[in-house]
Amino acid sequence: MPPHSRSHSARPATIKDVARELGISISTVSRAMRDFPDVNPATRQAVLQMAEQLDYQPNQVALSLVTKHAHSIGVIVPNLDYFFATAVRGIDEMALEAGYTVLTCQSNESYGREITNTQRLVNTRVDGLIVSLSSATSNVDHFRRLLLRGLPMVFFDRVGTDLEASKVVLDNKDGAVQAVGHLIEQGCRRIAFLGGPASLFISNQRQEGYLATLRAHGLPIIEELITHGEFDREHAYRATLQLLDLQPRPDAIFAMSDRLAVGALLALRERGVRVPEEVALVGFNDEPVMSLLTPSVSSVAQPAFDMGKVAAQLFIEMLNSDQSLPPQTVVLKPTLVVRESSLLRRG
Amino acid sequence: MPPHSRSHSARPATIKDVARELGISISTVSRAMRDFPDVNPATRQAVLQMAEQLDYQPNQVALSLVTKHAHSIGVIVPNLDYFFATAVRGIDEMALEAGYTVLTCQSNESYGREITNTQRLVNTRVDGLIVSLSSATSNVDHFRRLLLRGLPMVFFDRVGTDLEASKVVLDNKDGAVQAVGHLIEQGCRRIAFLGGPASLFISNQRQEGYLATLRAHGLPIIEELITHGEFDREHAYRATLQLLDLQPRPDAIFAMSDRLAVGALLALRERGVRVPEEVALVGFNDEPVMSLLTPSVSSVAQPAFDMGKVAAQLFIEMLNSDQSLPPQTVVLKPTLVVRESSLLRRG
Repeated sequence: MPPHSRSHSARPATIKDVARELGISISTVSRAMRDFPDVNPATRQAVLQMAEQLDYQPNQVALSLVTKHAHSIGVIVPNLDYFFATAVRGIDEMALEAGYTVLTCQSNESYGREITNTQRLVNTRVDGLIVSLSSATSNVDHFRRLLLRGLPMVFFDRVGTDLEASKVVLDNKDGAVQAVGHLIEQGCRRIAFLGGPASLFISNQRQEGYLATLRAHGLPIIEELITHGEFDREHAYRATLQLLDLQPRPDAIFAMSDRLAVGALLALRERGVRVPEEVALVGFNDEPVMSLLTPSVSSVAQPAFDMGKVAAQLFIEMLNSDQSLPPQTVVLKPTLVVRESSLLRRG
Repeated sequence: MPPHSRSHSARPATIKDVARELGISISTVSRAMRDFPDVNPATRQAVLQMAEQLDYQPNQVALSLVTKHAHSIGVIVPNLDYFFATAVRGIDEMALEAGYTVLTCQSNESYGREITNTQRLVNTRVDGLIVSLSSATSNVDHFRRLLLRGLPMVFFDRVGTDLEASKVVLDNKDGAVQAVGHLIEQGCRRIAFLGGPASLFISNQRQEGYLATLRAHGLPIIEELITHGEFDREHAYRATLQLLDLQPRPDAIFAMSDRLAVGALLALRERGVRVPEEVALVGFNDEPVMSLLTPSVSSVAQPAFDMGKVAAQLFIEMLNSDQSLPPQTVVLKPTLVVRESSLLRRG
């Protein structure tokens, strides 16, 4: 016999028992169990304690009696790095407010794993999915089929361009326009672009912004200043050493991600190049490390948390509507954060 | 009619159809669908394409026909910061090898949310849970009840001391012994301790290691050098400014986390104190930023990834045994990573 067996009736406790014992409404108990923010913290604590005491086991079916939903959202992300972990926190915060539980799976950038995750989540009868595609996913039929069956889905950041679904994306081109425009204002004229793999959609969008801004300011496009490669620090380090060997060398570097910007900074430090006096530097992502580096590094901030919140908001609106809403695309604007690495006051 | 409807029979495709079309075994198809690493990548790709083409919908029941398990692990973590995101990656890697899907929930450091997540995951019929407790959890009855019912569970990092379950923990005291021992070797004699909240178990274990090491070296315990406070950078910044006002001031700071070490470094920079010459600094966690700071900061590395892998390994062993295994506790050792912030060569 378990050591915590109790003397009260063997009939399983119900939500009514909890409400009666505390002299509060069933709705309040239900909302407290689901962690709704409008429930007084002391009340919530009392409900949880009473539920424990009575051995009340709410199941998802009971919790969702008030609506037709299971009250859970399946989330599939390629990984849990700073950007995606922050976006998932945003989803979680909005879900918490609306009384939803979030089940998150990582695809580990694998197409097969993404399919397995999708099936597993759908089989747990989540109310729908919020997804950012793996880098290996080119065929999105596994999602298209679920959309056709009417499963609510929202895509964010890495979205399938040919899926008729609601999407939350960043204006990547605008971020690059801000970064390169700022470098030009600071007096830079030979601005290098550190890109990711040429196949990566967001890398190309950022390169487009780079090119458009140079053109808009009447500056020449210099092919040898545009580099592509693996999406890691080591590549950026080597590419920067090569850029520094050019004659004349660049007077600024715009890196399409902070990971690449850090690699560039390490190469600049090793060669004793003064930043920003000799070469200015701007990254993309605004990870927390950028403000702590010496010099602190300018970066284009992505609203990762908001991206998650907006995706969850679209999702919950979809659930609560009659599901005849047309797909929406929300485009969020990035914000350039200027720090020491690009402040020249010579523009 | 969906645009991708197909001409083959309306009978739903089965795993046998996929195997027959490709001329391979059902077991291979099953393993490919579950992303087993021993399946040739080309075979996996062919299986996924054929499954798409035939509109074969494996469900979890079919996938788990070969065993009695649902092949999924529920994970509950307090948040998805660097440490926990890395641990979840470790769980995921081990689960992937064994053919399991991982469903992760964040408790957001909330006791009520942790209970809700637990119920939600159990209701999706996961095979069991891998858990790290929220900071607000003091009562662990919700987990104890599941253990008594025989649900496989493994706890890691933040574990309930009075739960009879398998656990994976870090030797926090040993990490502090390494850090403080190193500072003493470097010639430091007035070593301050930047602690977290006095109620936090891991903070106390690290403080114990600090005190034991001072005693072992015959150094006095100086109460004014021991601080506690909120677990954030701002607190560490203010506490460090106060430490610097002492006469005589400390010649080293051991921070119980990197977040606190970064706060300390910002205060040291602001006061123009040379690190390590005037004040040496060691943190705890070895987050990636530590190697990039100026000076680079020494830190005690926690094997977060391995912690997740070992937790998943214990879990899978438990599932595959006759479940009569006694609970195990695995203690992992941290490793001090020495960098510029504590290298004095005057010891």
